[in-house]
Amino acid sequence: MLDRGFHHDGSSDHVSTLAPEPGETVTVFLRTPKDHRTGVHVRSTPDGEAHYTEAVVDRETPDEIWWRADVTVRNPVTRYRFLLTGDGGYRWLNAAGLHHHDVPDSADFRLVSYAAPPAWAADSMVYEIFPDRFARSGADRTYPSWAVPAGWDDAVTGAGPDTSVQVFGGDLDGVTARLDHVTGLGMNTLYLTPVFPAPSNHRYNASSFTEVDPLLGGDAAYRTLVDEAHRRGIRILGDLTTNHCGSTHPWFVAAARDKDAAEREMFHFGDDALGYEAWMGVASLPKLNWTGERLRRLMAGDADSVVRRWLRFGLDGWRIDVANMTGRLREIDLTREVAALVRRAAAEENPEALLVAEHAHDASGDLDGDGWHGTMNYAGFTRPVWSWLRGPDVRLPFLGVPAPIPRLGADRIVRTMRAFAARTSWRSLVHSWSILSSHDTARIRTVCGGDEALVEIAAGLMFTLPGAPMVLAGDELGLEGAWGEDGRRPMPWDRPDRWRTATLDAYRRLAALRRDEPALRHGGLRWLHASGDALAFVRERAGERLLVFAARTAHEPVRLPLGAAGTPLYGGTAIVPGPDDTVVLPADGPAFHVWRLG
Amino acid sequence: MLDRGFHHDGSSDHVSTLAPEPGETVTVFLRTPKDHRTGVHVRSTPDGEAHYTEAVVDRETPDEIWWRADVTVRNPVTRYRFLLTGDGGYRWLNAAGLHHHDVPDSADFRLVSYAAPPAWAADSMVYEIFPDRFARSGADRTYPSWAVPAGWDDAVTGAGPDTSVQVFGGDLDGVTARLDHVTGLGMNTLYLTPVFPAPSNHRYNASSFTEVDPLLGGDAAYRTLVDEAHRRGIRILGDLTTNHCGSTHPWFVAAARDKDAAEREMFHFGDDALGYEAWMGVASLPKLNWTGERLRRLMAGDADSVVRRWLRFGLDGWRIDVANMTGRLREIDLTREVAALVRRAAAEENPEALLVAEHAHDASGDLDGDGWHGTMNYAGFTRPVWSWLRGPDVRLPFLGVPAPIPRLGADRIVRTMRAFAARTSWRSLVHSWSILSSHDTARIRTVCGGDEALVEIAAGLMFTLPGAPMVLAGDELGLEGAWGEDGRRPMPWDRPDRWRTATLDAYRRLAALRRDEPALRHGGLRWLHASGDALAFVRERAGERLLVFAARTAHEPVRLPLGAAGTPLYGGTAIVPGPDDTVVLPADGPAFHVWRLG
Repeated sequence: MLDRGFHHDGSSDHVSTLAPEPGETVTVFLRTPKDHRTGVHVRSTPDGEAHYTEAVVDRETPDEIWWRADVTVRNPVTRYRFLLTGDGGYRWLNAAGLHHHDVPDSADFRLVSYAAPPAWAADSMVYEIFPDRFARSGADRTYPSWAVPAGWDDAVTGAGPDTSVQVFGGDLDGVTARLDHVTGLGMNTLYLTPVFPAPSNHRYNASSFTEVDPLLGGDAAYRTLVDEAHRRGIRILGDLTTNHCGSTHPWFVAAARDKDAAEREMFHFGDDALGYEAWMGVASLPKLNWTGERLRRLMAGDADSVVRRWLRFGLDGWRIDVANMTGRLREIDLTREVAALVRRAAAEENPEALLVAEHAHDASGDLDGDGWHGTMNYAGFTRPVWSWLRGPDVRLPFLGVPAPIPRLGADRIVRTMRAFAARTSWRSLVHSWSILSSHDTARIRTVCGGDEALVEIAAGLMFTLPGAPMVLAGDELGLEGAWGEDGRRPMPWDRPDRWRTATLDAYRRLAALRRDEPALRHGGLRWLHASGDALAFVRERAGERLLVFAARTAHEPVRLPLGAAGTPLYGGTAIVPGPDDTVVLPADGPAFHVWRLG
Repeated sequence: MLDRGFHHDGSSDHVSTLAPEPGETVTVFLRTPKDHRTGVHVRSTPDGEAHYTEAVVDRETPDEIWWRADVTVRNPVTRYRFLLTGDGGYRWLNAAGLHHHDVPDSADFRLVSYAAPPAWAADSMVYEIFPDRFARSGADRTYPSWAVPAGWDDAVTGAGPDTSVQVFGGDLDGVTARLDHVTGLGMNTLYLTPVFPAPSNHRYNASSFTEVDPLLGGDAAYRTLVDEAHRRGIRILGDLTTNHCGSTHPWFVAAARDKDAAEREMFHFGDDALGYEAWMGVASLPKLNWTGERLRRLMAGDADSVVRRWLRFGLDGWRIDVANMTGRLREIDLTREVAALVRRAAAEENPEALLVAEHAHDASGDLDGDGWHGTMNYAGFTRPVWSWLRGPDVRLPFLGVPAPIPRLGADRIVRTMRAFAARTSWRSLVHSWSILSSHDTARIRTVCGGDEALVEIAAGLMFTLPGAPMVLAGDELGLEGAWGEDGRRPMPWDRPDRWRTATLDAYRRLAALRRDEPALRHGGLRWLHASGDALAFVRERAGERLLVFAARTAHEPVRLPLGAAGTPLYGGTAIVPGPDDTVVLPADGPAFHVWRLG
């Protein structure tokens, strides 16, 4: 037991409310071993000063003592942790685990009294579609002059002058026609990368935010897709570039042409080589300037703003592109302010709108405000999972890190997952996306060196850990790709011979498992084991306990003092405790198992 | 070696400038073992996006490789850390140490481009005086009616109705008369708790900010003290209550009397029991409200503001009382804004003014802005040192923590010290105060159970670790006290029989050592050893290397692969490496040693 039987997290078993009001007193519950009978305090820091409340025993189970204490949500983000002194020891329990010495506050548990994320979002399972590559409707399109048309079965130009202009011709009617594939997979939320007109296949360089690209079928096709998705109970998210627009966007064209243009304040013009700030110095992506009122109004504040008009059109939220850089430039740091502005604007149209921020390193400083509900959890999920499961001979980069993904033991990657999770509230974790691949990364199958058993483990972790699974379309079929652009391969609808059916089956069964088990979507998380080749954790809620066990290869048997039998829900056979209440988990691998403990 | 020979910190050996300008490119140096010959990158996050620069070998020494890389100070606080992949391993080095897995950004090294702290401050050694208890001039004073006069040799009423009104009659002329004691001890900076009029002996409930309490000798005595201190090269700091004033202050009297008073906005009036917010609910300490302009002007902005008028009078800076709560209340969090406001106001009068913030837990969120230069490092110094050195049978509280200070091994307390240090810039650490006792805590002698050898170790750590030593007057004489008020005992000037002369001698020699050794004030810090009973570290700068070794009791001999002989500077005898370059440190204890390695 990684924390020796001491446990608390932000899930409903352990906190009386997940959506506290400002000033509300919240009851928090701490679990300890039976021999820890005195000396439990909870510490919070109202208005910046440490404050302690003594915990009392709420109840006892055969295995545990449940302690109860009150924490007042004095500030919008109220941090707390537990001081354990009773049995002569000296320990702190915070969201990173148990510590035998004093620790800073950064990994404290958090209660957040800003408006809660939309209720549907913790149940979401997200399917990412890159519209040019998902499906063609067969409609006759006139390609613009910049486009280099490709046949659906052509190879993707992953790197080269054509990379961003190679157009395969996927469109929105194509997506609509394939919605049964999405529901059949068990996913309930679509995230489409940008659909606004732009002189590229990725469309992150928007030349308009007021219409859908005619090449994708225009507003009408989007209308149909949104309605058809909703009819099936599928929510749909857009992709909002808050950091930049395209250099062909009228805002920028006007601003660049005339120093006195009203649009001038919407960008950062200066004396540098380009004459203006651009994303990573890329001329076609001028950076938006949030210091002025005009951008704030046009992007968010006005009734007809980008944020609001498309939510009114029917979107259920936005994935926020380059959220990590949005509003940041030299001495300017308006990121949290922009996030709050976008959130307020979104809520005006749709109180149930979801906002998920792109962020590839440590997003904690940008979460738990009155802004983004969660992040794309590359740092706290993708990288550690890749690092554990990458093929032994695979050398792949990851989002700009100048070294291939390392191969690390489960002890290390669990430390990473816990460290990142500990720096946000539980609810920000639950509303972040667990990602195995995205349009910006290699594909998980390639990461795993083509080993479908490793892919299944990766998918297993994605569907069973806290956080909303986000599947890049095609991963479920076993598409490959060694980096983002290389992985943007068209869906091989007409080549079922190329589908990895075992992978597809695993994704379907795992999505169904998550759908059927509230503990996987809403339950707490207790790490029970993490060695080099194996890891185990429990998801639990309201008496339901699911044991998840993953092994990347055959390994020494793992013994856990569970005191309960397990009924297999995924993989494996029943497990039964021995006379000493210890359960011995299977020693084979690669393997992924889920049991219901009863 | 705790980090296996990998080292970087923010000191001048490792960073090309300690005061970078915005946009400046700073050269950083990383030291690695000789066998780490490839694969060093530095990572920073300009404008929120990760960016990597490859390091190159700058030079080699017999023991080490020094790598060089550039970091551009793109943002006011630029974080960076090192990625080490060359020898097949996978490691990150941040300010908390070496990690074999991915870590969040919170312990990254930091470069700060806000104006640097005053140059004198890193050399300061601070002597804290509680005016009522330091020395009497013998002047005839008329005590106010609330005062309960005490004779100088009377016992302090540490707890009871008289605690805050028992007046011993120390005054500023008394301090002036004893300045030779301060210089004789080797201290160069005075910090006086408040001197403004107030109906208490501690004077944190000021009834005026515009004059010095006549009971202390008034403005004239302060004038003399400031001038006499300066004449001796001693700087002097005031104590500024930015969080509250006294309920007898005209601001509050006017505000409480009339809802329409201009002063009303300077406080938080409401419907709670008291009718207004007060520090910890104490009626005599109404909390100041920084949301309005009036307080900002009167406290900081105006030429005649509290901050400015006393700096103009001659103060060299302020200790900021209850900085941790200043500007914080429920949804309001103006702490950093107030700090920046006070800093700007202070710089208007005296660009060399120092601002040190009271903070008893994790101050990192309030540092490294354009505000406080450092903190009273209770969390990262006092508590860990107490936890290591407290007498085995001593049970003492610490600033509200509802459990006695634990007794922990050096391995644990070094982890705490590193964890807290890692959450601020090096310069915030260097400009924070290393405190063994203050007027708010027990006295170090009592913490150590009266053991002078343990006190010497504590003082040794205070004078040799990064951070400015802050000595509570009387600690050097061995005064006792089990909590703050109990420790506010008058200086026994006329009872030298009660002085702990060994302690006094140790303080003098340690202060002289710090004064004479730039490496102790400006050098880097490398932890070499931390076990239960012993710890060792090196302070080094420009080729000077000092080895510091402390043992709280006799212990297993510690062997360090130093490859250099050591000349004793404090305690001990010379150390000489064996044929394998290993030095064996003395196994006796309690002991405190400093050697110059050559």
